[in-house]
Amino acid sequence: MAGVIGGKHRRVDGIAKVTGAAQYTDDLAPSRMLHARIVRSPHAHARIVSIDASEALAMPGVVAVITGSDMPIRYGILPWTQDEQALAEDVARYVGDGVAAVAALDERTAAQAAAKIRVTWEVLPALVTPEDALARPEVKINPLSKDGNVCKRVDLRFGDVDAALAGADVLVEGEYDFASTTHAAIEPHCAIAEWDPRGRLTVWSATQVPHYLHRALARVLELPEDRIRVIQPPVGGGFGGKSEPFDLEFCVAKLAQTTGRPVKILYTREEVFYAHRGRHAMNMKFRTGATKDGKLVGVASKILIDGGAYSSFGLVTTYYSGQLLTAPYRFPTYAFDSTRVFTNKPANGPKRGHGSVQPRFAFECQLDEVAERLALDPIELRRANALGEDATTVNGQKIGSNGFLECLDAVERASGWKERRGKLGRGRGLGVAGSTYISGTAYPIYPNEMPQSGVLVKLDRSGQVVVFSGVSEIGQGVNTMLALVAAEELGCALDAIRVHTGDTELSPVDLGAYSSRVTFMAGLAAIEASRAAAKLIREAVAKKWECTAREVGAAHGTIFHLDDTARRMPFAEGCQLAESANGAPIATGGGYRTRKVGGDYRGGSIGASPAYSFTAHVAEVEVDEETGQVFVKKIWVAHDCGRALSPVDVAGQMEGSAYMGMAEAIFEEHAVDAHGIHRGPNLLDYKLPTTLDTPDIEALIVESNEPGGPYGAKEAGEGPLHPSIPAIANAIFDAVGIRLRRLPFSPPRVLAALREQRTREAKKEQA
Amino acid sequence: MAGVIGGKHRRVDGIAKVTGAAQYTDDLAPSRMLHARIVRSPHAHARIVSIDASEALAMPGVVAVITGSDMPIRYGILPWTQDEQALAEDVARYVGDGVAAVAALDERTAAQAAAKIRVTWEVLPALVTPEDALARPEVKINPLSKDGNVCKRVDLRFGDVDAALAGADVLVEGEYDFASTTHAAIEPHCAIAEWDPRGRLTVWSATQVPHYLHRALARVLELPEDRIRVIQPPVGGGFGGKSEPFDLEFCVAKLAQTTGRPVKILYTREEVFYAHRGRHAMNMKFRTGATKDGKLVGVASKILIDGGAYSSFGLVTTYYSGQLLTAPYRFPTYAFDSTRVFTNKPANGPKRGHGSVQPRFAFECQLDEVAERLALDPIELRRANALGEDATTVNGQKIGSNGFLECLDAVERASGWKERRGKLGRGRGLGVAGSTYISGTAYPIYPNEMPQSGVLVKLDRSGQVVVFSGVSEIGQGVNTMLALVAAEELGCALDAIRVHTGDTELSPVDLGAYSSRVTFMAGLAAIEASRAAAKLIREAVAKKWECTAREVGAAHGTIFHLDDTARRMPFAEGCQLAESANGAPIATGGGYRTRKVGGDYRGGSIGASPAYSFTAHVAEVEVDEETGQVFVKKIWVAHDCGRALSPVDVAGQMEGSAYMGMAEAIFEEHAVDAHGIHRGPNLLDYKLPTTLDTPDIEALIVESNEPGGPYGAKEAGEGPLHPSIPAIANAIFDAVGIRLRRLPFSPPRVLAALREQRTREAKKEQA
Repeated sequence: MAGVIGGKHRRVDGIAKVTGAAQYTDDLAPSRMLHARIVRSPHAHARIVSIDASEALAMPGVVAVITGSDMPIRYGILPWTQDEQALAEDVARYVGDGVAAVAALDERTAAQAAAKIRVTWEVLPALVTPEDALARPEVKINPLSKDGNVCKRVDLRFGDVDAALAGADVLVEGEYDFASTTHAAIEPHCAIAEWDPRGRLTVWSATQVPHYLHRALARVLELPEDRIRVIQPPVGGGFGGKSEPFDLEFCVAKLAQTTGRPVKILYTREEVFYAHRGRHAMNMKFRTGATKDGKLVGVASKILIDGGAYSSFGLVTTYYSGQLLTAPYRFPTYAFDSTRVFTNKPANGPKRGHGSVQPRFAFECQLDEVAERLALDPIELRRANALGEDATTVNGQKIGSNGFLECLDAVERASGWKERRGKLGRGRGLGVAGSTYISGTAYPIYPNEMPQSGVLVKLDRSGQVVVFSGVSEIGQGVNTMLALVAAEELGCALDAIRVHTGDTELSPVDLGAYSSRVTFMAGLAAIEASRAAAKLIREAVAKKWECTAREVGAAHGTIFHLDDTARRMPFAEGCQLAESANGAPIATGGGYRTRKVGGDYRGGSIGASPAYSFTAHVAEVEVDEETGQVFVKKIWVAHDCGRALSPVDVAGQMEGSAYMGMAEAIFEEHAVDAHGIHRGPNLLDYKLPTTLDTPDIEALIVESNEPGGPYGAKEAGEGPLHPSIPAIANAIFDAVGIRLRRLPFSPPRVLAALREQRTREAKKEQA
Repeated sequence: MAGVIGGKHRRVDGIAKVTGAAQYTDDLAPSRMLHARIVRSPHAHARIVSIDASEALAMPGVVAVITGSDMPIRYGILPWTQDEQALAEDVARYVGDGVAAVAALDERTAAQAAAKIRVTWEVLPALVTPEDALARPEVKINPLSKDGNVCKRVDLRFGDVDAALAGADVLVEGEYDFASTTHAAIEPHCAIAEWDPRGRLTVWSATQVPHYLHRALARVLELPEDRIRVIQPPVGGGFGGKSEPFDLEFCVAKLAQTTGRPVKILYTREEVFYAHRGRHAMNMKFRTGATKDGKLVGVASKILIDGGAYSSFGLVTTYYSGQLLTAPYRFPTYAFDSTRVFTNKPANGPKRGHGSVQPRFAFECQLDEVAERLALDPIELRRANALGEDATTVNGQKIGSNGFLECLDAVERASGWKERRGKLGRGRGLGVAGSTYISGTAYPIYPNEMPQSGVLVKLDRSGQVVVFSGVSEIGQGVNTMLALVAAEELGCALDAIRVHTGDTELSPVDLGAYSSRVTFMAGLAAIEASRAAAKLIREAVAKKWECTAREVGAAHGTIFHLDDTARRMPFAEGCQLAESANGAPIATGGGYRTRKVGGDYRGGSIGASPAYSFTAHVAEVEVDEETGQVFVKKIWVAHDCGRALSPVDVAGQMEGSAYMGMAEAIFEEHAVDAHGIHRGPNLLDYKLPTTLDTPDIEALIVESNEPGGPYGAKEAGEGPLHPSIPAIANAIFDAVGIRLRRLPFSPPRVLAALREQRTREAKKEQA
């Protein structure tokens, strides 16, 4: 142990990013590169009768046009729902669905040519709400549409929840609407493709999942996988919005093949909104029952999920909408019935806190009502129902470490909850909420027995250490995490480490940056690989020093004798001794192997994770009753991330999560009109909080020790988002006594609720 | 054994190179890159009194100027002769010695600014011949000049050669002059440097020795080695001319550090001539004695070597000038006394056939004279003295395989020697010569116990195989060799292999492309690494098939059961099984470990090699007695390369070598005038054969099986050059009866020799 883990370190990519030196995908321009633009459907649902590209192709500077028939094979992120075509061939299913792509010498010409591609459409009925889609099963939105355009239904019951709710002392019922929101990463999607002279394809892409993209490219382009290389340059934000293949990646590959030149597509901001794959809108009917002393007896939900036009990760979303609710509280019975429905809109997919942010909002609001009904402190209610460590949830998930009670303590103390809650005067209030999240899923997206994460560590005689890993640095800090692990285990200087990630040729496979899996899985793989290399160094040094390898230590670039620290040598010399002893260069591998954790519960594997994080928020709000504006003044975020490998990065994730949750609570809505036309696909109309709108956020790291985690670590990237929204909702109730159940909490809705409140109170007074 | 080795394959980099897709160093342009130019001395020897860069720095677009004092630390390719400074600080030692460098926004401005840097010189005596340098020891040319400006003297005797020569039946004595020649690679030297935001340096350079450059950059820039990365893009020809650090590599690094921007220097063609490090001019006095039946009894030489201003590889050159002559013929006594002298000229260094091409010329001409004197067929004389297999030379070199007699047979047969030699009429003739060369040296340039070559093989579940090696692809085909070895051992498709070489960060160390070491050493390392990976695949497949690993075969992308070839699977599936079984990504290492071969002979290790190649040439020439022009019509080249791993590449090396030797025989001379000014530093004045001047060359591959070599292979890149020059000289004698002992065989020299011949014959008639 070299004392690196848990210390305060600069991110390995930090200076490059803040100085502008980092080269993102759009910063790359292979020589002779063409620019391409995708022609998109103006209709939410329409049959493609014909496409006439002759006028576009006649323009000077236009090099090639492709359409759906050039790439007929369907793909999809999940092997069970391969329902997308790189360019729609028969039917466009949402406004923005791609139908053709044109490559030209420059971006402007490509855009002008795209406008000259004439598509003859036969307009079909556009069904833009799940209710309408269910009501008109004769209109088949998606090739996989089942009756009533259902994509997936999961109806699972754990114990006799109806009986439990019927026998509850208090039963809270409510209907909640979560608006769709999108990731709004600052970097638009961008991809470049180039074929080498031997017919091998390289695709650079702002993706979170190089390995899955690798597989999808092979499928769609009908190439052996060994002919393809995917490189992920630094990514300017993902949040789940770049975690599956997108049309541009196939289009640049095909156009580069057709033209023999490198081809780039950079989405316009408008296209980013069409690509979407953001948070699913959900209509959620929740029932929560408790005994009169506040013990939960049952929870039941019925959830209608607006899927958009394609499946995306929808199977997972549907499971997650129910399966991830069963902690941090114990309840003996549980049921959920979730249905994802196709609609003629951009497909919804995974956004930070995939599938579970929406029901968490509903449920934590319900808990606040239970507390209100029982006149209990909402924090006390949560404490009383906490699952604790080494527990099994009602749906069979195995909880290891659990710092939820410490999280509650931390936000209670920091916010002055006991002294301040309910005592801030009308218009100002505090609210609390809790949550849990996974640290990756137990199984890979496609079934296989290989490690889910692989890391190679190479030693050089210069003392340089190279870490190769297929993980994706999407801003979350995985490159730093890998460097910290290597420095910890090897005892080299942090600056001696070079991290190569996100390149399917150079690095072993890691499944990608999603489901908060990376620190846990790649971290364990990195420890294994680094320890194997460290062992070779220590054995070689021990031979020279005529001691045992256990007596050899190393830290910060120096190798020393543990009992006689005057005996020392530079780290590089240790590498040289090891290479001499090995007689060959040293590269050691480590892997994260799937553990069959909780894999036996109903509903299959989806939802099971090797470790669970816990969070509690207290939010403080101010409500302007004249304008209906809600001002979030402060959020206290306590998060149990297991061991914090890099506290600065953990705090950053907590702050970013709380910010993003607050944005969804107050500002964001990814909405279309009745014709399926987006209400404003740009960053002026789609409201995001600026720095001036952003509350003070206090990150309170709660460390626990997860037995199977890397140095005891769990996740920190998604969990801390969940309680933001219900904590704000509950704070609004504390401030002005209204219960908002529809997102976002926009001024008209706040004003309407206040009006309703006044009417109710007036009636009460009259009565 | 997958049947790949020895087959006819396309080079892995072939299409990229012929289509222009390959990106050489000068094709790269990191954003914000500056261009720099080096200010060079117009004097062959002068003290730098002062440098005034104010006018240059005042020019718009000029960013920085550096001079010698910015990089005070001396370097040199050999640890014992660190006599160069990146920019000369006190004294310039040849016309072209760099003294300052200027970086500007573009190349033209850099060149204009360089012309405005005012250097005040104190001109010193310029000594441009070894004779003058020896005669004026008071003028110290180089910091390491010993008495009379001697750089190195090696005087070694093996047996009593004087007694043997005194007792010889026939004694041939002669003085030979080998002109300096240069490599004239089509790609000029080019280097780019960039510092990353964390203070780490990357240098891209057209170098043959990334590892040595890595070390030299650390030394001169006073950086830890772990902060430096050297990348070698495809190289447009090296031939030894890029096998040590050059001023431009340090200058771009320093200027990039100073300016905070990437900096490129591309040598002008004139600068390439100044950089030089080409073939040393040698004055060689040879004595060769034989018995009357043609058995050699002794060989003695005294060699004066023109070193130029710096040491370069001079220590090695001096040893090689004597040590590498002792095969393919047996002689019981031998002595050489070689002295390398500093002169005020661009430093000479290693050129294809380093150090041994010059004495080989002299000695093979002497053998022709011995045959003439004894009226023996020159081929018969060579046969009679052949060493044979498993022999030890007079200076202790251990010969393993030896196909020299087969080489002689092959050229004798192919050329119609017996029927045609001496019978083609005056003006046309045939000549023969033989030679040997090393397959790398037993020891690295800097003493260490680590493997001289390291290879890593990484398997991917896609079936992709990545070979990482620090070797340098300089056109000789090493990337293809590595791919062939991996395909042979793993049984994957050749196109499934990606080779990453010439990058000190990605790849394990290999010492570089020099001394014909690569196929032998990196080949063995690649076999070792590939076999280890193949073993893991076969064991995993065997487990599935419930058989033994020995029963599992693989070839061309398919894995099969050796006894039941219907049982088969794609190679990728084998990789997947292996990765599953391993539980971690698979990367295996292989190394070439120094073997203590012939390390006990006098003179130390230099010259000892693990394996020796053999060559014989027959050249056919036509001499125009009116103009003095020699036309080389055809060269038959037979070369014992051990096992030919890729016969097409071996033949290419043989043809290129014979071409280059022929060019030196007839055309080339890298010469300066009495003031040290180059006689024409451009490719118009420096004559190279065009395609029209190039003879028909017939490559006759002679395979032997070198016991310690990779599949029995030895070298092919340098050996086949050696006999070209003496075979042409001997053919000229056969054609017109003159013995040319001074290179090149230019028309004036031919005409002078013919005049002398006529005078001699006239005298004979008069007598």
